[in-house]
Amino acid sequence: MTNPTAAMLVIGDEILSGRTRDSNLNHLAKELTLRGIDLCEARVVADDHDAIVGAVRALSAAHDHLFTSGGIGPTHDDITAPAVAAAFGLEAGVRDDARAILAAHYEARGVELNAARLRMARIPEGATLIDNPVSAAPGFSLENVHVMAGVPRIFEAMLAGLLPRIPGGKPVLSQSLRIERGEGDVAEALSTLAAAHPGLAIGSYPFTENGVSGTNIVVRGADGAEVEAALVELSAQFPA
Amino acid sequence: MTNPTAAMLVIGDEILSGRTRDSNLNHLAKELTLRGIDLCEARVVADDHDAIVGAVRALSAAHDHLFTSGGIGPTHDDITAPAVAAAFGLEAGVRDDARAILAAHYEARGVELNAARLRMARIPEGATLIDNPVSAAPGFSLENVHVMAGVPRIFEAMLAGLLPRIPGGKPVLSQSLRIERGEGDVAEALSTLAAAHPGLAIGSYPFTENGVSGTNIVVRGADGAEVEAALVELSAQFPA
Repeated sequence: MTNPTAAMLVIGDEILSGRTRDSNLNHLAKELTLRGIDLCEARVVADDHDAIVGAVRALSAAHDHLFTSGGIGPTHDDITAPAVAAAFGLEAGVRDDARAILAAHYEARGVELNAARLRMARIPEGATLIDNPVSAAPGFSLENVHVMAGVPRIFEAMLAGLLPRIPGGKPVLSQSLRIERGEGDVAEALSTLAAAHPGLAIGSYPFTENGVSGTNIVVRGADGAEVEAALVELSAQFPA
Repeated sequence: MTNPTAAMLVIGDEILSGRTRDSNLNHLAKELTLRGIDLCEARVVADDHDAIVGAVRALSAAHDHLFTSGGIGPTHDDITAPAVAAAFGLEAGVRDDARAILAAHYEARGVELNAARLRMARIPEGATLIDNPVSAAPGFSLENVHVMAGVPRIFEAMLAGLLPRIPGGKPVLSQSLRIERGEGDVAEALSTLAAAHPGLAIGSYPFTENGVSGTNIVVRGADGAEVEAALVELSAQFPA
């Protein structure tokens, strides 16, 4: 049985202009790796209806799950909810359950639930709400697309609530080995090792720190004994 | 005249597993913004031949330029050069000019130019080399695709050499305004402002720091006077 596959779609002009550095991809990648869900692809698009619709259709069709971040706030450029709905031929009007969550949140704070804030209650029919314990305005899951906020602490809180609902796979185990040799010196051994272990993913990452250069080797796979065996073979060839 | 458009393709299992946090996208985005080149889209794919070929074909056809990072080192999983070549129906064999660069670099250091290191001289015919002042192994430009290393300090050095060769557009100017009001309180004014200035991109980014919540407004456009005028209109509505 193979693991579920996933893609991520990061939505926002601010990422593509360089104003904001995305951190949600790295967080999602780590969380999915822990749960045995293979993140296969990610895309970043602007706050543009057609770009979002196109990416949602392509990525949701190609993978078991699509996670999105960004574009679900109260302002004119927050167009993710209607665009995701449109990708499935639906609309995203203000939904009563989402409105009730926002009404309770703002009433408790003496803040008006104005027309702009009501935009955050636009949820497609049939979608399941994703809880937002930080600022109330919910995300949603529509078909296999999970729509979350772009602000990292909200994205992370939404994801923490969502992930237990999503079946995982066999977690990928990872071990690493630090070798104080250049990548070019270990490459042939890695190539032989990779050929002998087609079930493992073997990556190499050169480093230089405190004047010492070398290569960090990362061996990943679902079979812990095989990961361990590969590391032992490799470290025998490059004793510290 | 509209600005040139660009896309980025980040290549590497380590980004999708969460082991490594990409920083090249943010660097590229800032550099392109300064030069009036519009970064419209970015994708992240694994070290997988078909995934790279598919993304290179789609993105290079849709944009004036495609910048890639990652997968040009000496190890078995460094497959970017042949994959980019294959996207254009070409091959990437060891090329004499690239081999000479590597030979000089390693000879000066008393290091063997072995078969693994020679992989870094695989350059498609017709491609223009991109200088690597950090570790010698060159990148290359093939058609409108610019292939660079994934290690950030090498990516940044390659990009610094490459960008002067690429015609820019009208730089996008940006001004920002800090408003100590929630996004929901400024959203209507922003919507009106955006409708009155279709040539501007207006973004809003909520913040909370030292117990103060508010919204940073970023107004971007090629016409500096219009950017300034929009900021003045907005600040009049939300005096500090």
